Amino acid sequence: MKIAGEHVQSIWYDLNCDSVKIIDQTLLPHEFAIVELNTLSEVCDAICGMKVRGAPLIGVTAAYGVYLSLREDPDSLQQACSKLLETRPTAINLKWALERMKEDLSQARSIDIADKALEQCQLIEKEDILICESIGEAGAPILQELWESRKNSQRYLNILTHCNAGALAAVDWGTAMSVIYKASDHGIPVHVWVDETRPRNQGANLTSYELNEEGISNTVITDNAGGILMQRGEVDMCIVGTDRTLSNGDVCNKIGTYLKALSAKDNNVPFYVALPSSTIDWSIKDHKQIPIEERNSEELSHVEGVDENNEIKKVRIYPKKSKSLNLAFDVTPAKLVTGLITEKGVCEASEKGLKGLFK
Amino acid sequence: MKIAGEHVQSIWYDLNCDSVKIIDQTLLPHEFAIVELNTLSEVCDAICGMKVRGAPLIGVTAAYGVYLSLREDPDSLQQACSKLLETRPTAINLKWALERMKEDLSQARSIDIADKALEQCQLIEKEDILICESIGEAGAPILQELWESRKNSQRYLNILTHCNAGALAAVDWGTAMSVIYKASDHGIPVHVWVDETRPRNQGANLTSYELNEEGISNTVITDNAGGILMQRGEVDMCIVGTDRTLSNGDVCNKIGTYLKALSAKDNNVPFYVALPSSTIDWSIKDHKQIPIEERNSEELSHVEGVDENNEIKKVRIYPKKSKSLNLAFDVTPAKLVTGLITEKGVCEASEKGLKGLFK
Repeated sequence: MKIAGEHVQSIWYDLNCDSVKIIDQTLLPHEFAIVELNTLSEVCDAICGMKVRGAPLIGVTAAYGVYLSLREDPDSLQQACSKLLETRPTAINLKWALERMKEDLSQARSIDIADKALEQCQLIEKEDILICESIGEAGAPILQELWESRKNSQRYLNILTHCNAGALAAVDWGTAMSVIYKASDHGIPVHVWVDETRPRNQGANLTSYELNEEGISNTVITDNAGGILMQRGEVDMCIVGTDRTLSNGDVCNKIGTYLKALSAKDNNVPFYVALPSSTIDWSIKDHKQIPIEERNSEELSHVEGVDENNEIKKVRIYPKKSKSLNLAFDVTPAKLVTGLITEKGVCEASEKGLKGLFK
Repeated sequence: MKIAGEHVQSIWYDLNCDSVKIIDQTLLPHEFAIVELNTLSEVCDAICGMKVRGAPLIGVTAAYGVYLSLREDPDSLQQACSKLLETRPTAINLKWALERMKEDLSQARSIDIADKALEQCQLIEKEDILICESIGEAGAPILQELWESRKNSQRYLNILTHCNAGALAAVDWGTAMSVIYKASDHGIPVHVWVDETRPRNQGANLTSYELNEEGISNTVITDNAGGILMQRGEVDMCIVGTDRTLSNGDVCNKIGTYLKALSAKDNNVPFYVALPSSTIDWSIKDHKQIPIEERNSEELSHVEGVDENNEIKKVRIYPKKSKSLNLAFDVTPAKLVTGLITEKGVCEASEKGLKGLFK
């Protein structure tokens, strides 16, 4: 991704200081700060506190957490994985990355387990970039086709997205946003309706920020607004990411995704979900078994922004006495999903569709 | 309504100072302030700036605006009505109240037109209270019946509401919330899921505030959360207000209402709309003809709250470069509405249903 015209990743290993570097996403869009991670506990805090977030990025960060732990204690593989697995419950990529690390390091000796872990992390990091780029290439023709059918009557192809499934949610490119970036690269004039995505406003804070930096036209809207825009014919397509995709095609993603999918169905707007295969959970059959994370209710009642002096300030927006509940994800049933866009191509949101590509 | 244990209305005429008094709702929940309105222009500003809001309350306030104008200039009836009608385009009560004033005053002489206008305002104010109370009584049996079917398995009857259709949206009682207040008075243990209702957060700021003051259990949630709560069976019923109801039963209400109605339908949750008959628009046949208000986009990008010193502060939460769009209403088609709760009883959301009660 480009930020201030420079190419940057959401996470990388810095050989000079033997540490892992991330963009602290809790400070965006008001401040751009790079943070060093040097210990397992710093990695766990970064994931819990959402300095890094987004299913693919959580996976890569967790892998680096394993490396940083093994660097200190070569016998800490199991323990590090257990601790990392507890940081966030819903995104399956975390589990996927940790299982991959465990498998790859199962035969490693104490003397070089840390080196092997680092190699593996760098491989996962590189793979994530390629996979996300492939998702973009796989999805772009859908936008191309839609644009061909609309270009005589509209100035832009209008895409609605929820939360941030962009480069900041992965190492680079992103998932849903990779499709948008690739379509834009192919010359399609895209305009993105960005759901602000309460309570943490990742849409406004991260997606709109990314799109501004990439020079792609976008407008932030409240999470309430997608319905009427679709009723008015101002949304040509929805595309979102996912934190866990069941083998039947049900999609668990940032809370509010389900409401947009319902509205898309009611207005005949195509609703696509973009994902790397690492977000597929082949084991769970019923979405009711997905653990839905409940986060601190202060994420709702308090909001951070910049005041008139450009200083970051946190304010309480709810009545002091009011309780609030902060569920982080919901489930969009497969029946509402037009298609899944993966690194291996596009398929139907069904077991048949997914198995056709991945098994 | 009760605030700090005292009975108060959202608007009233104060004989002592011959002025109209309102609660400044833009300051809630952080500050409770009563504001005097003495001129037409103050009334217009109060409506535009949402010191008063909510379809019924806008109507009553506009009527008082006519009085304040006539008090200064007995020949200003038409002009005052035109000016007031421009303040907000979507809620039909504004038009209703102004047409009623024009009709009632059509024969009045300059010498006593202001006195007659004041009489009429006070009548409209009193009627609004009675109508809202009747809506509550008409709707409470629906909650009673639901509760009978659930009381063996739940501690509370869980009602979801969007925006504020409470006492603060009318002179007293409210519309949707009147039903909740009456059910609570009848001994039903109600718990309300309060949609925060971005961008102006009337759910958190006004509805939760009202419910706290009335001692009714409530939890604020993001507008994104209703879907998963319904998927989990944690919502027994939805009830909302409306700014304009078409004769075919389509309901134009605060943006985001439509998304909740879709979710309710998908999860077999009853979805009711409560309204005084003054919000019915008998003239428009197609919801596409309803003027949907677009408000200042700063209502999205900036948020007001209190800082750690309990001082009210406004912060910008979006990236500086980001554009935003602020549509204030959407349309819920009649097919998603279980029933309309009016001052004359409950009916189907259809022309037949409405005409059965009102024509």
